[in-house]
Amino acid sequence: MPLSERALIERIRRRASSRKFSAITRGIGDDCAVLDPPPGHELLVTTDFCLENVHFRREWHPAKAVGHRCLVRGLSDIAAMGGDPLAAFLSLALPAEIPQKWVDGFFDGLLALAERWKVPLAGGDIAQSPQGVMADIMVLGSVPRGKAILRSGGKPGDVLYVTGTLGLSVAALQAFRAGKKPTAKSTPRHFFPDPRIDIGRLLRERKLATAMIDLSDGLSTDLSHICDESGVGAVVYATSVPYVGGENGLEFALNGGEDYELLFTANPRARVPKEIDGVPVTAIGEIVQRRGMWLEDKRGKVAKLRPRGWEHFRGEKK
Amino acid sequence: MPLSERALIERIRRRASSRKFSAITRGIGDDCAVLDPPPGHELLVTTDFCLENVHFRREWHPAKAVGHRCLVRGLSDIAAMGGDPLAAFLSLALPAEIPQKWVDGFFDGLLALAERWKVPLAGGDIAQSPQGVMADIMVLGSVPRGKAILRSGGKPGDVLYVTGTLGLSVAALQAFRAGKKPTAKSTPRHFFPDPRIDIGRLLRERKLATAMIDLSDGLSTDLSHICDESGVGAVVYATSVPYVGGENGLEFALNGGEDYELLFTANPRARVPKEIDGVPVTAIGEIVQRRGMWLEDKRGKVAKLRPRGWEHFRGEKK
Repeated sequence: MPLSERALIERIRRRASSRKFSAITRGIGDDCAVLDPPPGHELLVTTDFCLENVHFRREWHPAKAVGHRCLVRGLSDIAAMGGDPLAAFLSLALPAEIPQKWVDGFFDGLLALAERWKVPLAGGDIAQSPQGVMADIMVLGSVPRGKAILRSGGKPGDVLYVTGTLGLSVAALQAFRAGKKPTAKSTPRHFFPDPRIDIGRLLRERKLATAMIDLSDGLSTDLSHICDESGVGAVVYATSVPYVGGENGLEFALNGGEDYELLFTANPRARVPKEIDGVPVTAIGEIVQRRGMWLEDKRGKVAKLRPRGWEHFRGEKK
Repeated sequence: MPLSERALIERIRRRASSRKFSAITRGIGDDCAVLDPPPGHELLVTTDFCLENVHFRREWHPAKAVGHRCLVRGLSDIAAMGGDPLAAFLSLALPAEIPQKWVDGFFDGLLALAERWKVPLAGGDIAQSPQGVMADIMVLGSVPRGKAILRSGGKPGDVLYVTGTLGLSVAALQAFRAGKKPTAKSTPRHFFPDPRIDIGRLLRERKLATAMIDLSDGLSTDLSHICDESGVGAVVYATSVPYVGGENGLEFALNGGEDYELLFTANPRARVPKEIDGVPVTAIGEIVQRRGMWLEDKRGKVAKLRPRGWEHFRGEKK
């Protein structure tokens, strides 16, 4: 490690505390961080790994993008509950040989996104890793008591919606594998995805979504979570799924991961906007009573849809 | 990994949700856990790594002890603020070859301690590790607003206290290195240390401690944190430090890590009990205005005390 643990923590502390955030009573520098969550609110907690050669590769992803994507994983989970982020905590294990420049780039990316959403980095841990960069990001958020949008609220008859365009992130990964060099300019959604916090909050405030999840593992897998938790099934209309062309477009949209878009269900009478904050919101299917998932193609032919999205234990296999 | 990620999460979920805990509105199984912290309280947050070959060795430490020690790291930080633990979150990266039996043992140890302190395991993440077991434990706690005992409250003239007996944990490590086989029976404080939560709470309730830290890195290093944050210095009386014999006893007590005892300062007029819950509380020094740390030996000779406790980036060197 280029700096000692203590020097690195001091450096992070200086950078992280450059702004005052109201929820934080005490940030980095004590046994615990101390937070004062807004009254009348419940607390949201999410933790996500961001591991080298599982979630990113140093030869593919610039350090800034790795830091950004690390924090996005947590912010996107907060968005999926309709919540507001309060604070982030980072546990970071670094291999001995990592250049200080890489570490600085990682924090540049993470702290720029944190600043943008007014989320202080309020604590964490630093250690040496035996192999590869291993980050664990924890984000705390808040939501008015009883108002969190769970995965379990989907009802038969509800319409299934998705934000944005799907499959872009895995398309960039596949391009890397094919020896191409996608960039942040060509595929910003892969390198610097924007968490859908404002959209999640609006859906919660207007009571539009009955169930919600963020698309981190892939539509087919994440939809199966909504179905399992809600005790329902779902039909997806292939022609409605928003994806960009290419022969694998639909496959990427259904089974690609790391889109960080929101997938939600809404009562058919709910007035869901076609666009929120410039991001398209598309009806792509419906919730049914019968357990299972089906894909209906343009000729009306229906086939079983299986959860085949990204699963971390498969590593880079997909 | 012996079980698929999904199967493992299901298994943990079943075990973790065997009891109902009041602060948890929604545990494992959504994008975030949802918690309702007690009104009028602030939130405490701590995260700690528990890495194979840095914090434990699979050939030395039974899986149960690894799980227990992993959670203790977080609980001890909550104790050091005078707080009560609310919930724990575990991110766990497992190497592909790890036996399911080891994983079960790890959760046996972790969940037994969690149950004992009524701390639900409310979420986390699972991934495959390229090398070694890597756990990151996050514990949330609560403390009445404004009452957290910080590291920064020490004042010149305050008496320095420590709970329990120091150096036992590193003594067990040194025994392992010398080829001996210490056991949980011979050194319970190394394998199954008890977090000093009740003591921390009592010190806070009775307003006895002005500053506090838990001894995870070693007395000399942890005392330096109190001194740095409080802007003071300290003198430690070698003859007062509670340690068991052996030629290295004092060295282990001053610079050994993972004691998980509490180190605190108190006004000289405060009536600090000599024993709390059967654990001795010993005055070992005093806080002085002049920055720095000194050790006074039995002949009254004073020498500079340097922070030479466990630092994780040094790995197993110590």
